[in-house]
Amino acid sequence: MKNSKSLADLESKYLPQLIELLKIPSVSALSQHKPDIKKTVAWLEKKLTKIGLETKTYSLKTIPDGNPIIFAQTKQDKESKQKPTILIYGHYDVQPPDPIEEWKTDPFNPEIKNNNIYARGATDDKGQLFTHLAALEELSEMWGENWPINIKMVIEGEEEVGGKTISAWLKSKQTKKLLKSDVCVISDTEFLDEKSPAIEYGLRGCSYFELKVTNADKDLHSGLYGGGLLNPAIALTNILGKLYDQSSGKITVPGFYDQVAELDKQEKEVLAKLKFSEKSWLKNAGNAKSLHGEKNYTTVERTTARPTFDIHGLWSGFSGEGPKTIIPSSASAKFSFRLVANQKPAQIEKLVKNYIDKIAPKQINFELKIFSPGGSPSISDRNSIWMKYAVTAIKNTFGKEPTFTRSGGSIPIVAELQEFLDIESILMGYGLPDDNLHAPNEKFSIKQFTKGILCNMEFYQLCGKQDL
Amino acid sequence: MKNSKSLADLESKYLPQLIELLKIPSVSALSQHKPDIKKTVAWLEKKLTKIGLETKTYSLKTIPDGNPIIFAQTKQDKESKQKPTILIYGHYDVQPPDPIEEWKTDPFNPEIKNNNIYARGATDDKGQLFTHLAALEELSEMWGENWPINIKMVIEGEEEVGGKTISAWLKSKQTKKLLKSDVCVISDTEFLDEKSPAIEYGLRGCSYFELKVTNADKDLHSGLYGGGLLNPAIALTNILGKLYDQSSGKITVPGFYDQVAELDKQEKEVLAKLKFSEKSWLKNAGNAKSLHGEKNYTTVERTTARPTFDIHGLWSGFSGEGPKTIIPSSASAKFSFRLVANQKPAQIEKLVKNYIDKIAPKQINFELKIFSPGGSPSISDRNSIWMKYAVTAIKNTFGKEPTFTRSGGSIPIVAELQEFLDIESILMGYGLPDDNLHAPNEKFSIKQFTKGILCNMEFYQLCGKQDL
Repeated sequence: MKNSKSLADLESKYLPQLIELLKIPSVSALSQHKPDIKKTVAWLEKKLTKIGLETKTYSLKTIPDGNPIIFAQTKQDKESKQKPTILIYGHYDVQPPDPIEEWKTDPFNPEIKNNNIYARGATDDKGQLFTHLAALEELSEMWGENWPINIKMVIEGEEEVGGKTISAWLKSKQTKKLLKSDVCVISDTEFLDEKSPAIEYGLRGCSYFELKVTNADKDLHSGLYGGGLLNPAIALTNILGKLYDQSSGKITVPGFYDQVAELDKQEKEVLAKLKFSEKSWLKNAGNAKSLHGEKNYTTVERTTARPTFDIHGLWSGFSGEGPKTIIPSSASAKFSFRLVANQKPAQIEKLVKNYIDKIAPKQINFELKIFSPGGSPSISDRNSIWMKYAVTAIKNTFGKEPTFTRSGGSIPIVAELQEFLDIESILMGYGLPDDNLHAPNEKFSIKQFTKGILCNMEFYQLCGKQDL
Repeated sequence: MKNSKSLADLESKYLPQLIELLKIPSVSALSQHKPDIKKTVAWLEKKLTKIGLETKTYSLKTIPDGNPIIFAQTKQDKESKQKPTILIYGHYDVQPPDPIEEWKTDPFNPEIKNNNIYARGATDDKGQLFTHLAALEELSEMWGENWPINIKMVIEGEEEVGGKTISAWLKSKQTKKLLKSDVCVISDTEFLDEKSPAIEYGLRGCSYFELKVTNADKDLHSGLYGGGLLNPAIALTNILGKLYDQSSGKITVPGFYDQVAELDKQEKEVLAKLKFSEKSWLKNAGNAKSLHGEKNYTTVERTTARPTFDIHGLWSGFSGEGPKTIIPSSASAKFSFRLVANQKPAQIEKLVKNYIDKIAPKQINFELKIFSPGGSPSISDRNSIWMKYAVTAIKNTFGKEPTFTRSGGSIPIVAELQEFLDIESILMGYGLPDDNLHAPNEKFSIKQFTKGILCNMEFYQLCGKQDL
């Protein structure tokens, strides 16, 4: 199949639109950005309607602080039932830009440098989501009223904060009917490098916690009170230290590994064949000092197929200049566990909660908050017809077949859709390993952006050739 | 001895002046307050000159970022040598007001409530220092040109941040000559309660550290990189956890206790006789949940005569609302050890540094900064003539003899003056245990303020009766 538009045409037509979208700081973790969430939703609704899709926005009364879900679909008529239905999933919310001082450009005023576009959300996920909007716009011009496929599109606004709204939405019968599809396509993953496309068939899940330890109701002078009561920051570090054994790289919460599916021999071989350079991995990992992780596993296994523990934030007492001799009244941490098949977040949350209840010293108070930004881990079938179309589209567009990999990240919707709609997800992601997801200076390669548009067009065209 | 001024007279004359002084936010830990330091110095110079003291301000070229030391003395003439010389030490700098949101009043706009004055520095140390300025002003009116004693006064501006300038100043021969005195008086301590005056004869020292652990040069996505490198926040909590054993309350840095002078039987008896109510101690300690500390020691011993470990601040990664799944690029902590006789800060700093060098994992980088806000611990003689004058002055003013106690806090100058000038310090402090030193809502009892003025007058008058 050959699509007539050149990469340059696509760039000049769609890049300015992407820039518009990236300018709206739709940060879901910070409630001050609620108006920006609204603006982003309005922008996307307008765009989807312009493409010719029937668009509707869903908010749930049961989750008043939730962000709307945008649903859009091709026109439904008598013939629709004869056509294959492709569900596209994406998210319009982005990570907070912190630490803001480490950005070289304004995170919400996109800049083009070295054929990349720099902005928060450039690749995760606004830029990748936009490859589908652009592909549909192109196909709409090509197909007019006669689409050979049905498109259903779901764009949520809480992917970075646990997706409470979509999780609740995916429980109703009406939603089930609305979303009925043959396959789901998601572009929120990455290539191995610019020349090595990849399709991720396994994803990690995640259980996320916030622990706050308190004692006195005010900061105390450590000279006068020091030694007489338990310092909350000491208690916090002590609890955190009991969750993980640094030397073996093992999580030490009892029962944590009970449900973990070990990699079989074949999978180990596939992962072992992946090109891995310690030097370039460390370079991409912000010039990290050295590899470190769970004993008896390779770095690829550790970061994609093994569960992990990370602390994401610590805060307590005085962090200003100079010394200040206080016993802080509280100390807090955010931390999470990445999960792999067949761990269940709810079960892990219970294990962690019970363990912390047990080990937390009696001399302090604490509060454990459970978030769920990651949900369940998932594994997809590599031999479905849809996967074959994806492989062909990628091969035709990028000149090389994709490698099947596992990802260490979490796209909880994949597991949720599998459970709810009994459909597979094809992770056709166009990111690159140095895109700085969730970090300062996030970017998206403009070539990946425009080729991504072509690749999506090819994929939808292949899907359209199928008789059901 | 009977001084004619009533408490009400003293209050109406001196409280407005103290309010003026408290309004200037002379926070030494934050460089933005340098102009306020200057204003405070100018205010005090003017005041001291008005009292009739020869006033001079010292800054050291070797410490360009240091805060000036104010020196003032009574006129020196032929007869000066025949008179006893009393050195008064105080500090004009204050702690930062953080956490600012927990103040019920503006920390730098003093308010009077329930016969207390609320402001940062109200008791530590501007209010207490002012009891001497007021006493000297009263005595100056009484004695005119014929002072029976010499007064030398040193007011520094770095007590809350390690006193680098005064430590350097106390090394020169000129300073030694300038400060030559018979005894030093310091009001920077507290009563056991309103009805129980106390003189602290033992003080703790302090070694203060800041540890920063770094790895990647940017925050990383914990899904993509988690499990592959050592998270700095994990490494930090791990190192901190190895400095202290929570269950025994013991510091676990090898060699840490080697120089600690154990309490002798008599001292243990004196401390055991002190009125101690667990309930009211916990109440004063910000309603802390329960007592906790070093095994086999009482709370009084733990907080005054035993070394301790405290974490004062933790900061790393994301502390905003909601979940954010990053591996932070760095993690930092401020922590300190309180020291007791005969520990030497320099030796402890070396032990801690060597130990951290040894236990810090090789997979991360770290930087250890050493501050010295506390300096050496000290012990004073309870039977000197000066101590007897202090006891008498307190008894006559407050109606009760002071109890001799140890303090858990640090006034490093006490040890420094002992070493440098070979003089004792009398800690005639007028604070109360609920004054919220170093914490939000710091206050000073107005009654303690005015009675403190009278008590100082009485003490100086007693000193003036002595023939040398």
